[in-house]
Amino acid sequence: MTYATLNDANQAVIAELRKARPRLVDVKPAGSCIPFLAEGMSLLHAGPPIAWEDMTGPMKGAVLGACLFEGWAGTAKEAETLASGGKIRFAPCHDNSAVGPMGGITSAHMPVLVVKNAEHGNVAYCNLNEGIGKVMRFGAFEGEVQTRLAWMRDVLGPVMSEALSHLEDGLDLTAMMAQAVTMGDEFHQRNIAASALLLRALAAEIVGCGGDDAKRREVLAFLGRTDQFFLNIAMAYCKCVMDAGAKVGEGSIVTAMTRNGKDFGIRVSGLGDRWFTAPVNTPVGLFFTGYSQDDANPDIGDSAITETLGIGGAAMIAAPGVTRFLGAGGFNDALEISEEMREIYIETNSSFQIPTWDFQGACLGLDIRRVVETGITPVINTGIAHRKPGIGQVGAGTVRPPLACFEQALEALAAARSRSA
Amino acid sequence: MTYATLNDANQAVIAELRKARPRLVDVKPAGSCIPFLAEGMSLLHAGPPIAWEDMTGPMKGAVLGACLFEGWAGTAKEAETLASGGKIRFAPCHDNSAVGPMGGITSAHMPVLVVKNAEHGNVAYCNLNEGIGKVMRFGAFEGEVQTRLAWMRDVLGPVMSEALSHLEDGLDLTAMMAQAVTMGDEFHQRNIAASALLLRALAAEIVGCGGDDAKRREVLAFLGRTDQFFLNIAMAYCKCVMDAGAKVGEGSIVTAMTRNGKDFGIRVSGLGDRWFTAPVNTPVGLFFTGYSQDDANPDIGDSAITETLGIGGAAMIAAPGVTRFLGAGGFNDALEISEEMREIYIETNSSFQIPTWDFQGACLGLDIRRVVETGITPVINTGIAHRKPGIGQVGAGTVRPPLACFEQALEALAAARSRSA
Repeated sequence: MTYATLNDANQAVIAELRKARPRLVDVKPAGSCIPFLAEGMSLLHAGPPIAWEDMTGPMKGAVLGACLFEGWAGTAKEAETLASGGKIRFAPCHDNSAVGPMGGITSAHMPVLVVKNAEHGNVAYCNLNEGIGKVMRFGAFEGEVQTRLAWMRDVLGPVMSEALSHLEDGLDLTAMMAQAVTMGDEFHQRNIAASALLLRALAAEIVGCGGDDAKRREVLAFLGRTDQFFLNIAMAYCKCVMDAGAKVGEGSIVTAMTRNGKDFGIRVSGLGDRWFTAPVNTPVGLFFTGYSQDDANPDIGDSAITETLGIGGAAMIAAPGVTRFLGAGGFNDALEISEEMREIYIETNSSFQIPTWDFQGACLGLDIRRVVETGITPVINTGIAHRKPGIGQVGAGTVRPPLACFEQALEALAAARSRSA
Repeated sequence: MTYATLNDANQAVIAELRKARPRLVDVKPAGSCIPFLAEGMSLLHAGPPIAWEDMTGPMKGAVLGACLFEGWAGTAKEAETLASGGKIRFAPCHDNSAVGPMGGITSAHMPVLVVKNAEHGNVAYCNLNEGIGKVMRFGAFEGEVQTRLAWMRDVLGPVMSEALSHLEDGLDLTAMMAQAVTMGDEFHQRNIAASALLLRALAAEIVGCGGDDAKRREVLAFLGRTDQFFLNIAMAYCKCVMDAGAKVGEGSIVTAMTRNGKDFGIRVSGLGDRWFTAPVNTPVGLFFTGYSQDDANPDIGDSAITETLGIGGAAMIAAPGVTRFLGAGGFNDALEISEEMREIYIETNSSFQIPTWDFQGACLGLDIRRVVETGITPVINTGIAHRKPGIGQVGAGTVRPPLACFEQALEALAAARSRSA
């Protein structure tokens, strides 16, 4: 052990989290930068490891969609035969420097955001946000979903890549998010400000890209109407920061929280890549017309990486505009949630000062000891997928992780420290 | 009198304010749509009427700048000779369906925003925001100021006009501002969200404009870095709404508040176009490096049309991010200001629900009776110009109108009602 106490170790982790400066530098085909995807029929998924048989509807739907998109199958039935026959290699995004919202299904020819930490040099990837409604990450997989994925591969990805190449060293995401947090974003269920600031930063560069006007116009129109476009960038940002913190290799700070629809998994700074899992809860919230709580899939997606850093639900007070969308009440409810979260995160993040919290920084450093001692689990702001494949998003709400993940991790940490003592 | 009581008349005014739906439909040369500017050497200025001799530094500087821009003079000295020799016709923006920030100086070949009220049909105009620092509205007038004005005339105006022409019926500003008020804008000293949303709405249409890439790229880059671009649109919006309310012709609702650097002037719904004036105060706030309170020009500009509607200072709670910029304190100070303002505005505006005010609508309907009874004058968020011509913006802060304007108007209203009774 390098550090005498867990507190010292945690402060070392916090120091690395604070130093990290992730920049959006490129958008590239996933297979060109994630080695696992370059070979055979391979897919990344959200959450801790899971087999096809255990996947819930939205992830299964997205797997079928990816098989169709990659041309491995001509029909959903053929795709299902491939998947159930064990022909597809699966691995968690998190084991491949990546994150993916909801199903998190990522294949070789999908474009991914490339976010590079200028301080530590590590890189994180995330696929591109498709918008809302009938989209693959929520389990829809046919028709417009395939058309959009092909357009993202052929137009959106290459145009964004070229636009980013015009910049000296990509975009400073910390600066952009510091601005957006003063504009009501919490970066999980509300990203409209950051999405608009991103478009603002790239619009002139997109015009400066070659190719025909129609394509550039399509890209700007898509970015202009996709309020959650920045979510995936925020996720890659948080992954990039948390991976830098994890390298300290000690301490009780949570470095990943994620869900595969069946299990919730966490990683802890002093416990490496080991997953501590327990069955997920099901989010509660507001549903689009025609859907209800009965349609809700259990908790799913890597997007809880935002709450791992201390934004998302922990920054609810930054985004009172989102509380009604989530069914989480009004301004005072948002304040109460962030105040409660402040008890389980050990520090604040001066990069993200929240005006509505009287300029207090966002939470930083989720400590498993605090979670277990207080019994307070993190509030996660989340989209809600229909439990059946093929439908898509049906609502948005909040959910908490099972306390058991944190209890197991704390026991393991105690054991590890007593062995090394 | 159509209405038995002032309260009834005020409710009629409020009803018209609520019905108004201003849309940004075009950007045109001022001389093509404001008849006063089409003839001779004519300029519009901010505030109630004022002669050249009485103008303060920033307005005088802008007059010189406009003379150079229009080619009426080749040097600042020649321009001053024209102005002091009575060769230039001056009129308030407000008497010509227009508003202008700070000096408000508007000439025939400057592009103006055309905002049309889809409900009542009336139109309001405002020149385009130049950005911050050395800009004409704050009294700078040479070098980069002239270069920028020429570019705005030749590139920015025509490109925006063409982009807007692609839309069915322009942009619904109420919807855009309803969104931006949830993103921390109060539309006077903070417009970053609305400016970004505007760019988002126009970016694809700008790409669809003819002409060379370089010009479209310049326009997108300018809109992308001009955080206050939307201020002038918000001003035309408020003018358009307040003019619709003024047509009721009765009541004690303020329909205009404006300042020319010497006098503060207000108009009231039951008193037509008559100005009630008293000497302005000087804003107090924070100054850019190298400047101090001693450099501050007295209060100037038509931008208090935002507080006339009930946004700007009255909506401070919507924009806690701006309070520090203005030297107005933290979140609780912002809340106190809006709560204080709530005492002098008789209604709230359901179009602009403020999440940080627990979704209460912005203030609406500033009643001169409430101002005089309580002694509470509106808080105005304002830019601060250097008192000398040629320098520009030196800070930002808050200021209040003189109570005397409201007292005079109340006496006049009582006299008018007793005559007609």
